Amino acid sequence: MKNSGAKGGRPISRYPVPDLAGLPEDIRTRIMKVQEKSGFVPNVFLALAHRPDEFRAFFAYHDALMEKQGGLSKAEREMIVVATSGANACHYCVIAHGAILRVRAKDPLVADQVAINYRKADITPRQRAMLDFAMKVARESQAVDDADFESLRRHGFSDADIWDIGAIAAFFALSNRMANLTAMRPNDEFYLMGRLPRQK
Amino acid sequence: MKNSGAKGGRPISRYPVPDLAGLPEDIRTRIMKVQEKSGFVPNVFLALAHRPDEFRAFFAYHDALMEKQGGLSKAEREMIVVATSGANACHYCVIAHGAILRVRAKDPLVADQVAINYRKADITPRQRAMLDFAMKVARESQAVDDADFESLRRHGFSDADIWDIGAIAAFFALSNRMANLTAMRPNDEFYLMGRLPRQK
Amino acid sequence: MKNSGAKGGRPISRYPVPDLAGLPEDIRTRIMKVQEKSGFVPNVFLALAHRPDEFRAFFAYHDALMEKQGGLSKAEREMIVVATSGANACHYCVIAHGAILRVRAKDPLVADQVAINYRKADITPRQRAMLDFAMKVARESQAVDDADFESLRRHGFSDADIWDIGAIAAFFALSNRMANLTAMRPNDEFYLMGRLPRQK
Amino acid sequence: MKNSGAKGGRPISRYPVPDLAGLPEDIRTRIMKVQEKSGFVPNVFLALAHRPDEFRAFFAYHDALMEKQGGLSKAEREMIVVATSGANACHYCVIAHGAILRVRAKDPLVADQVAINYRKADITPRQRAMLDFAMKVARESQAVDDADFESLRRHGFSDADIWDIGAIAAFFALSNRMANLTAMRPNDEFYLMGRLPRQK
Amino acid sequence: MKNSGAKGGRPISRYPVPDLAGLPEDIRTRIMKVQEKSGFVPNVFLALAHRPDEFRAFFAYHDALMEKQGGLSKAEREMIVVATSGANACHYCVIAHGAILRVRAKDPLVADQVAINYRKADITPRQRAMLDFAMKVARESQAVDDADFESLRRHGFSDADIWDIGAIAAFFALSNRMANLTAMRPNDEFYLMGRLPRQK
Amino acid sequence: MKNSGAKGGRPISRYPVPDLAGLPEDIRTRIMKVQEKSGFVPNVFLALAHRPDEFRAFFAYHDALMEKQGGLSKAEREMIVVATSGANACHYCVIAHGAILRVRAKDPLVADQVAINYRKADITPRQRAMLDFAMKVARESQAVDDADFESLRRHGFSDADIWDIGAIAAFFALSNRMANLTAMRPNDEFYLMGRLPRQK
Repeated sequence: MKNSGAKGGRPISRYPVPDLAGLPEDIRTRIMKVQEKSGFVPNVFLALAHRPDEFRAFFAYHDALMEKQGGLSKAEREMIVVATSGANACHYCVIAHGAILRVRAKDPLVADQVAINYRKADITPRQRAMLDFAMKVARESQAVDDADFESLRRHGFSDADIWDIGAIAAFFALSNRMANLTAMRPNDEFYLMGRLPRQK
Repeated sequence: MKNSGAKGGRPISRYPVPDLAGLPEDIRTRIMKVQEKSGFVPNVFLALAHRPDEFRAFFAYHDALMEKQGGLSKAEREMIVVATSGANACHYCVIAHGAILRVRAKDPLVADQVAINYRKADITPRQRAMLDFAMKVARESQAVDDADFESLRRHGFSDADIWDIGAIAAFFALSNRMANLTAMRPNDEFYLMGRLPRQK
Repeated sequence: MKNSGAKGGRPISRYPVPDLAGLPEDIRTRIMKVQEKSGFVPNVFLALAHRPDEFRAFFAYHDALMEKQGGLSKAEREMIVVATSGANACHYCVIAHGAILRVRAKDPLVADQVAINYRKADITPRQRAMLDFAMKVARESQAVDDADFESLRRHGFSDADIWDIGAIAAFFALSNRMANLTAMRPNDEFYLMGRLPRQK
Repeated sequence: MKNSGAKGGRPISRYPVPDLAGLPEDIRTRIMKVQEKSGFVPNVFLALAHRPDEFRAFFAYHDALMEKQGGLSKAEREMIVVATSGANACHYCVIAHGAILRVRAKDPLVADQVAINYRKADITPRQRAMLDFAMKVARESQAVDDADFESLRRHGFSDADIWDIGAIAAFFALSNRMANLTAMRPNDEFYLMGRLPRQK
Repeated sequence: MKNSGAKGGRPISRYPVPDLAGLPEDIRTRIMKVQEKSGFVPNVFLALAHRPDEFRAFFAYHDALMEKQGGLSKAEREMIVVATSGANACHYCVIAHGAILRVRAKDPLVADQVAINYRKADITPRQRAMLDFAMKVARESQAVDDADFESLRRHGFSDADIWDIGAIAAFFALSNRMANLTAMRPNDEFYLMGRLPRQK
Repeated sequence: MKNSGAKGGRPISRYPVPDLAGLPEDIRTRIMKVQEKSGFVPNVFLALAHRPDEFRAFFAYHDALMEKQGGLSKAEREMIVVATSGANACHYCVIAHGAILRVRAKDPLVADQVAINYRKADITPRQRAMLDFAMKVARESQAVDDADFESLRRHGFSDADIWDIGAIAAFFALSNRMANLTAMRPNDEFYLMGRLPRQK
């Protein structure tokens, strides 16, 4: 299974990628479930399985932020990921979450727009305010202050929503750095996903 | 229990801090254990308990990186935390982990040195190389490349050590942003800890 | 013809876009020629036709750099455009020239890779050196010195090639700023172009 | 003619400078005309004549922006050049256009002031707003937005004027990079021009 | 006396440190006075005594700003030193003036807070405005303008106070650079000073 | 005497400028001496005389660094001033010390070159190394290390020379900030000084 899904045999991580067979049961189950759902195994699962404990914490954190209900739509959560990952020049996250954003927003254009310059993207003023804040958390969180909270509240965000925005930006600050550290390579499948009219 | 340990009743988080009594059993147990060991509850436990699922993932990740065995000593792990948290101007993490670093290194000076300018700290050339890399992951992880790995190997770091260095910097990129988002306040106890000759 | 090609009637420029019929003969001819070749009129032609003299100079400069023969392949020229436009967060140029790069390189992945982080792209060491230099011209041209020329020569670039690399980065420093000034919107067609196996 | 006008035989470009005699007729005519008017040939003409097609496009663009009528005076156009070229540390453009600004503004002080720190220059509030915008286009054009346009309109600038300001900043983003790429050397004559009471 | 007070014999300066006995009378007297008052000789006196004339000018400047009466309390003056020295990553000044700030403010926490992120420190809004301005002088003094003065006046600062704030930030811009140039090492005594309840 | 020498009555400082008559004797004497030598009173003397104690310390420091004998020529000292003042966008210091540099170097071109981009100036490799280090002290003194000293020694600089280079950069870090704080205006006389063949 090593490096499967990689283009021309290019490695998907600087670190060894474990065989599915040798993985702990819970991790193997999680990976097989995502494969069933997506039709392929996103490389982040294989690259991070190199360290099972960190893998478990990483995906538990991810799911707590990205799969929960709340004031932000799932597409909006992915916008935060794509915008901040663009700012961090994270190859894996822009490509993989760009695909998920296209699918969740049912919009083939918005992911590239948000990745390049979210100020010019086809988004609402509320989403623009959300991304302004996410970028501040990503780039200079030490300057976050009460005025930021007030400005977001004026756009209708609750304090729980603001935690979500900031925490997603914070979690992908971690995720982008892990992807850059391991030179994680996105699966070729992501590049085209969600770009064609009816494609899931 | 709200805001306990805070100076003059100053809040320890922008968000509500739950009562110990109302917390899920596993979280309450974890908090009581740390209180027993340290003599007080570090505010990060109370501030993050506002979101139990994220709390669990956060501390699982933390322990996977900071409590494990490996080529880096516990003091060295804390050096990475303090140096990168200084670069991110994270009040909570510099103060709290500065205290832990003093205790673990049994050195009352090194934490302030590493927080202000690690290049001038009383550390070994190997530790300097470790911190150079951690700072690169913290500040421009997109530029990490093979030459960084080679340079660290020349200082005797294994590839597993390099993952540890990078992953700790990455995890505290998350942690610093959560502390800045929530305006997390360090306990007054941390400021003096490890500064006196025999103090634990 | 106003704003034709724009999504849901979104404007393609902050400035009025002239009707084809009212344009000077030479400009209309140029535009009709590109429409014939591409099947649509890239918005840059319409947006810049607002100022005919600048339009003529812009495309004369563009063609002098991008359509000439030389040591750089057409795909390599487009790599320079995409990498430096990514650094300048230029929505129009990353999307439009990303499409052209996919077509010219016959590679559906390379454009996104170069736009996000060229250091992680599937390119040769020679192309990596080319892009390092292009980025230096884009971001701090005042620091270009003899050592840069020597390093590029070691990768087999002639002095004429180096002029090409630098001049393309310089021309798109202009182009990116014009696109950002006018809020130029890329045609929807570009997003998918060159991503499917046999697509032109 | 090689390197004529250069101090102590110092080269005026990293690239060969053609003899006037060997240049295409239109370029030679243009150069002789400027020599007649100025009394010497500014080195930019000789350095860029190395590539005739790019020379033609460059000066056509230059003239379209700098020689036209409009809401900005010729001195104001030169202020934009000098301020943004200072920001880009472009030796040739600050010296040569500083001289032209002194002549056009009939003011021996303003060019040095604008080059060093335009905020402290002897200019009007309207000119200050003009330069604030020009610097934004020069340094972070991706952040240009509607609020910038509204602010400039309040200072009495038309949308055509704003295009002019932005386009001049954009064109000299190109020009500064070409000068830095080729290590273009300004003629000694420029340093003193416009500094003496009656000097042209 | 060489390097006295340094930890484990670590040098306190890259440059030779003179013996007290060999110093000019006025300098020796000054140093003995500070030793009497503090119980030890701060290393800055020994390191700068390497150049007597500069020593005299340095401390004359220091005293003119730090020992005078005026609208700023002595603790507030030290806050400016600590905040700007933190921004300049100056090991000596953060440690030594952090100690003085603790003593003068009779607050064991504020120095670390101000050094790490003054925006999160336990200070008044007036002190926050004072530090915002000091940081602007430290980091981009070329942008200081009338609006800064008006904003400070609204917080009750006189023009004389504003000179004091700016001049202290300016003087420590010098001082931080001298400490970094000479690799000046703070005395171990400073780390603990002012941290214990009744300690002077 | 208020604001004398200022263009069209423009103020030379944000702060009141004292009458010569009312100044302490030593300061008046110093100012009259410089007037005799230069033919006019440089505005820095009048602007800083607003605070006599700081005036005395400032000029004592200045003279200790700029008027002493040593391995750096007086022109080289002024090069350091002009280069670092350019980096700090200090209007007063670039204009006034640019004039002094032209006079001391007997070179009408070098000051503008060093102010704009010292890398392209007509200076020796040794002077280039000197300015590289001065700029490092001006901009990121926290990164100064042993390798910088070794590199300068290879260019023939003694440790005393290196102190001089760093200390001049440090002193003008102060001076530039004071000039920006007070909006100090250079005398009109400086602009032309040293530009004409025989001018002193």
